[in-house]
Amino acid sequence: MPISKWQQTFPRTEFLRRLAEVKSEMARRDLDALVVSDDDNITYLTGYTVVSGYVPQGVVVSLHDEEPTFILRKMDAPAAFHQAFMQRDKIIAYPEDLIGNPDKDGYDTVVDFLRELGVANRGIGVELGSLPPRAAEKFKARLPEARIVDCTKAVTWIRSVKSDLEIGIMREAAAISDAAILRAAEVIRPGVREADAAAEIIGTLARGANGKAGTKTQPICLCSSPRTGTCHIPWSEDVFTSGSQINLELGGTRHGYVAALMRTFSIGAPSDQVRRLHDAELAGLETALETVRPGITCGDAATAIYRAIEKHGFKKESRCGYSIGIGWLEPTASLREGDMTELKPNMTFHLMMGNWIEEDVGCAVSETIRVTTSGVEVLTNAPRKIFEL
Amino acid sequence: MPISKWQQTFPRTEFLRRLAEVKSEMARRDLDALVVSDDDNITYLTGYTVVSGYVPQGVVVSLHDEEPTFILRKMDAPAAFHQAFMQRDKIIAYPEDLIGNPDKDGYDTVVDFLRELGVANRGIGVELGSLPPRAAEKFKARLPEARIVDCTKAVTWIRSVKSDLEIGIMREAAAISDAAILRAAEVIRPGVREADAAAEIIGTLARGANGKAGTKTQPICLCSSPRTGTCHIPWSEDVFTSGSQINLELGGTRHGYVAALMRTFSIGAPSDQVRRLHDAELAGLETALETVRPGITCGDAATAIYRAIEKHGFKKESRCGYSIGIGWLEPTASLREGDMTELKPNMTFHLMMGNWIEEDVGCAVSETIRVTTSGVEVLTNAPRKIFEL
Repeated sequence: MPISKWQQTFPRTEFLRRLAEVKSEMARRDLDALVVSDDDNITYLTGYTVVSGYVPQGVVVSLHDEEPTFILRKMDAPAAFHQAFMQRDKIIAYPEDLIGNPDKDGYDTVVDFLRELGVANRGIGVELGSLPPRAAEKFKARLPEARIVDCTKAVTWIRSVKSDLEIGIMREAAAISDAAILRAAEVIRPGVREADAAAEIIGTLARGANGKAGTKTQPICLCSSPRTGTCHIPWSEDVFTSGSQINLELGGTRHGYVAALMRTFSIGAPSDQVRRLHDAELAGLETALETVRPGITCGDAATAIYRAIEKHGFKKESRCGYSIGIGWLEPTASLREGDMTELKPNMTFHLMMGNWIEEDVGCAVSETIRVTTSGVEVLTNAPRKIFEL
Repeated sequence: MPISKWQQTFPRTEFLRRLAEVKSEMARRDLDALVVSDDDNITYLTGYTVVSGYVPQGVVVSLHDEEPTFILRKMDAPAAFHQAFMQRDKIIAYPEDLIGNPDKDGYDTVVDFLRELGVANRGIGVELGSLPPRAAEKFKARLPEARIVDCTKAVTWIRSVKSDLEIGIMREAAAISDAAILRAAEVIRPGVREADAAAEIIGTLARGANGKAGTKTQPICLCSSPRTGTCHIPWSEDVFTSGSQINLELGGTRHGYVAALMRTFSIGAPSDQVRRLHDAELAGLETALETVRPGITCGDAATAIYRAIEKHGFKKESRCGYSIGIGWLEPTASLREGDMTELKPNMTFHLMMGNWIEEDVGCAVSETIRVTTSGVEVLTNAPRKIFEL
């Protein structure tokens, strides 16, 4: 039997709105078709969230078609029928014998589709930066009459400004992040193995919050003493002890959308140095919440944040945040000095004050925020403090 | 204070053995240096398992140096000091202002290092297939006197044959997979939310087995009715009901190494069709265990497996397995017809009999196996059956 459509996260009108923005950009660049291969951009344009992008797949947006066409491996086509907003005839399955095949792969099927579409001698956008070089060359070699235009990050930039519907989903993701931080505060105790605490924290990322399940579990970073000067290590096989400090970074996920959150935990009182570092981070965070608003640039915000931190006697070298949404980090705007991206309403950022000042000294506090029409809405809501346990 | 080295998973001699194989391949290709950017190959050559490859990083193997040099973001350098087997002076941190910087990035630091190494006019191997095209161009443009040789998958192929030490770690990972399947059999019940069962299953992937923690949690696929014809969907927000079928794929992880495992669960008796399909898969699996041995090709094994399945009246279109190790799938050998890779002792495969024959009909059984000197060792050990709950 044909597989049914699942309960769609977004209405069809939302996808048509997104596609209209993409098509407008395509028209501006004189492109008849756009090939989207970035996993997160595919989620944005179709609603498909399955992890299958480790083999070739692509969504083709045509100026001449209302709905995009999704070309993917036959084994994954039923999942696309189930999840994507489009009608069944917009999903093309390529045969399984193209998997692990050194001579021909799914990108050949994408090229074949472009030729059938009649755009082989027109402008075709390709996300070259999301493709291995050999695949990028295949598009050029097999479409010699086309004007291939690199559209890496074109869709990524469009999705950096969210709709209110997307913000609603990100609020649900943020509530999951809050719940996981609170769970961490319950389970981090002397004598507990880090892995057992991690199991509970990640379990919360799956169970979700307020009756809304997490739809995926993102990797967590649980950097405990003596690793508190590192920022991306997962849990170790150690046991927490009295005096342990733990810097935790995690992200709740709803239908592809992530809200990230960082907090520091201390079994017993933190050192003076860590407390002062955390105070500096809080000052940076407060400054961000006062500064961020539409019209200023990311660089303006970053400058204000860095100065606030420096007033507390610390220097932060890493950026103060980055655009966040589908799949966690969006590789577009950064809260770093010199980033000229203008802030707009409904951009969302992981406002990240984590600071690792020595190889064994660091702590972290962050929030996932939305730029409003006049300032900031903080989507995450866990107590903004060092959790002393 | 400088961060300490953690308890190393492998002795230094193991890394030197791996490097000797890589250097031998480099000499064969007349290369003075090799730039490794694939995350899993970096783990193989250094022991570093942190997820930081979403920003530029690279390991440079030089014919003139015993140890490789790891160039990565400053923020992640302490984690490399902690985890990698090399001495501290073999880890080079590039500054944070290269992150999110459109003009210059960490690959420039890698190129600078190659120039300092004095190999700018020699043969340099680069994993071009693991780089975005712009980064690949950067190596060519900034090293115009060098002979740049594409070494995509060169290290990947070398690591497809494991040492006994690596096999030992994969056995630990396999025990975690077994434990997670048994946990699934305990928690999948009518009335239970899929997300709550997923939380317990993933929790087991973190807690581990036999006192050995899972060191990372891989995404799981929990494809339940009506999604049993899909293969890569995670859990949904539904509740299991009487009559639900669940196809579960998961992978335990130890220090980067993954052992994958698939089983089908049925609340109540499965349909006759599913039972017959599962019998065909078991026949394919038994044939694989009788057939696989050094000296035959992957294609030979696949042909035997497909014929065994066909004798039971079913056709399997997807490959019967793939090389597995660090980071799950190794993109090298596949158990597919026509794959001429010769099987060698200590190659490891995810032997994957999952078959999805209609959009809403499929089931799965798999094992992670090792090729021995005379046949097969099955690393995973969960009961090889449909779990009727």
